[in-house]
Amino acid sequence: MRPSIQITRSEFDDRAALLLDHLRAENLDGTVLFDNFHIVYCTGFAFFPTERPIAFIMNRLGEKALFVPSLEVDHARIQTGFARIDQYAEYPCDSHPMETLKTTLSKMGVTGRVGADTDGYPAILGYRGPSLTTLLGIPVIPVGNFIEDLMMVKSAAELALMRESVKWSHLAHRLLQRYTRVGATETEASLRAGHEATLAMIDTLGSLYRAQSMFWEGAGAIYRGQIGRHSAIPHAMANNVVFQPGDVLVSGTLAPLWGYNSELERTMIIGPASSEQQRLFTHMKAAQEVAFDALRPGARCSDVDRAVHAYYEAHDLMGYWKHHSGHGIGLRNHEGPFLDVGDHTELKPGMVFAVEPGLYAPELGGFRHSDTVLITEDGSELLTYYPRDLESLTIPL
Amino acid sequence: MRPSIQITRSEFDDRAALLLDHLRAENLDGTVLFDNFHIVYCTGFAFFPTERPIAFIMNRLGEKALFVPSLEVDHARIQTGFARIDQYAEYPCDSHPMETLKTTLSKMGVTGRVGADTDGYPAILGYRGPSLTTLLGIPVIPVGNFIEDLMMVKSAAELALMRESVKWSHLAHRLLQRYTRVGATETEASLRAGHEATLAMIDTLGSLYRAQSMFWEGAGAIYRGQIGRHSAIPHAMANNVVFQPGDVLVSGTLAPLWGYNSELERTMIIGPASSEQQRLFTHMKAAQEVAFDALRPGARCSDVDRAVHAYYEAHDLMGYWKHHSGHGIGLRNHEGPFLDVGDHTELKPGMVFAVEPGLYAPELGGFRHSDTVLITEDGSELLTYYPRDLESLTIPL
Repeated sequence: MRPSIQITRSEFDDRAALLLDHLRAENLDGTVLFDNFHIVYCTGFAFFPTERPIAFIMNRLGEKALFVPSLEVDHARIQTGFARIDQYAEYPCDSHPMETLKTTLSKMGVTGRVGADTDGYPAILGYRGPSLTTLLGIPVIPVGNFIEDLMMVKSAAELALMRESVKWSHLAHRLLQRYTRVGATETEASLRAGHEATLAMIDTLGSLYRAQSMFWEGAGAIYRGQIGRHSAIPHAMANNVVFQPGDVLVSGTLAPLWGYNSELERTMIIGPASSEQQRLFTHMKAAQEVAFDALRPGARCSDVDRAVHAYYEAHDLMGYWKHHSGHGIGLRNHEGPFLDVGDHTELKPGMVFAVEPGLYAPELGGFRHSDTVLITEDGSELLTYYPRDLESLTIPL
Repeated sequence: MRPSIQITRSEFDDRAALLLDHLRAENLDGTVLFDNFHIVYCTGFAFFPTERPIAFIMNRLGEKALFVPSLEVDHARIQTGFARIDQYAEYPCDSHPMETLKTTLSKMGVTGRVGADTDGYPAILGYRGPSLTTLLGIPVIPVGNFIEDLMMVKSAAELALMRESVKWSHLAHRLLQRYTRVGATETEASLRAGHEATLAMIDTLGSLYRAQSMFWEGAGAIYRGQIGRHSAIPHAMANNVVFQPGDVLVSGTLAPLWGYNSELERTMIIGPASSEQQRLFTHMKAAQEVAFDALRPGARCSDVDRAVHAYYEAHDLMGYWKHHSGHGIGLRNHEGPFLDVGDHTELKPGMVFAVEPGLYAPELGGFRHSDTVLITEDGSELLTYYPRDLESLTIPL
């Protein structure tokens, strides 16, 4: 037996059992999942979605199957231990893979009321094929939201992975801050921080480590071009910008572990902050604390965002507003529910959010911290522990 | 005026004009695109898709609009120069963004026959919303395949970016091979190669460079765990494997430029190769040359894959087969058409393929080279130029 921090097979089985309860309650003959996050969540099979359709099928007897192209058979068997792995040769090949899927569904007795997360395999990387409705000639019952709701509340094992991810995000960010200096470029600072943090992480975690992410290996810290006046454009793509005195920086980190993510972002300022920079930084930090205080079980997501809006309105800051106060996080860097005035989902213990109200001043820059916060039985817990104050986040000239 | 190698606005306009011809021919009032690759292809607006829907709309008068959340307005305006950028505050917010989209469509006269690439915004990162069919109460005409077909044939500007990408993939691979040594780990070799190749690339290209990729910044070379016996699992995810004598390695590279990709993969052996390794390497290389020879305008994709199958059958290799001979490449690392017995698309000058027939021996490893090949007026051109022979790809003990 080898030590592991990954999600156990019994936990995957428990999740599939909840889906089974749901499909019985909905009087379905079975269900088909196509989304790779839904599949890894219910089975443990992690894969890169390509033009080759992959599906997880479960019938109302609880029989499970993976449907994969031949090149994924070994991979699927190793990761899930499933007895039934149905394969097709290749896409598009002589007969369309969806015809093979239809046969699998028929053999498993999934012929009447069928649930699915999407109506057929999505048009990924050039894939073309029929909807499930067209293929089966019957309407399909959506089950995606049921799984999304399950995914919102994290288990102890999921939280352990997210806490571990937080640590390596912290290291990558510490190094990014250290290597961010006037005259250096965004790319140099990011590469060096990511390189060193990743080596430290893999040398520390050894065989416990697997990223199992489509988007990132190792630990990284990046700016995505959110530097100086560009930092007023959230989610901008990276430029190879040279750091200059007075730049407002918005950082981000990545350190997926067995697919699970955390979020740590900081506003940093090169050189002594101007009075306007100080003003917006202080308001941004206060608004984030307003959100922290509103995060407790029984409150609604919309309550948190409304509290932030109220703070902005009280301080005449709505002109700097651009987005909601946060989002769920887990297997995906963003997921529901959203800390948004329009999302009335009740907060429950085990939910985890990236909390990140922002202020954006067109000619000055963006101001946003993002922290990963867990809803607990009696309030909330800040999982990220990187300093949030201006003094700690000012980069000396 | 500043030098640039990116796609010009007039080229984006030309693409949109082709889509306009199509929607008039189909007698549509207008069309909606949701897919981020379709949108960047037709408008130049590159973005990370999130829970916030984004769409490109064009009516039959040729009037164009981008539909974006407020936080993307500046970004969309800078990248496209469009006069019309319609915004909604946030997702989910008080009223669903799709209601705002409905208003935009109505104002633009897109109320009767409507085309779309997908029937509503896909369920990305927790997004939930109505299909376009449900929203508008009318069936939607698919236009996705029309754009996919346009994207298959690359322009001179697209080819220039792909040729540039090939060079930096080459450098990253050269460094990966140099740093791959017995006792080193996959991650060390990859990080060092990627770090150095990226600094060289950005210092060389300067302001000409932008990755504009969702998946990668800079130039990188990776193994994705395809090391030793794991190399028999194509597209495996990375392990932090330590290199050992006798390992068969399958590498990959990444160097997106303004969104455009190339593909360079090599089978390497931590040598000397065993006789069975030599045998499979030699067959793999010969099968790839069979594919190269079959790539010419007027032939069909299926002809190429059939020629490879014929080679495998003649040499009793079908037991080692796992996937088709290749795929289109461009803005996406994989895209149609596919070099597959089931894809009868005619090869045309300007199409670019990753050509990669593979052989997979369960206890030994995978054998696959991938090269990027352009279909020309009278045959084909190998864009990648990394050595393909066993001697060059044997790593000394």
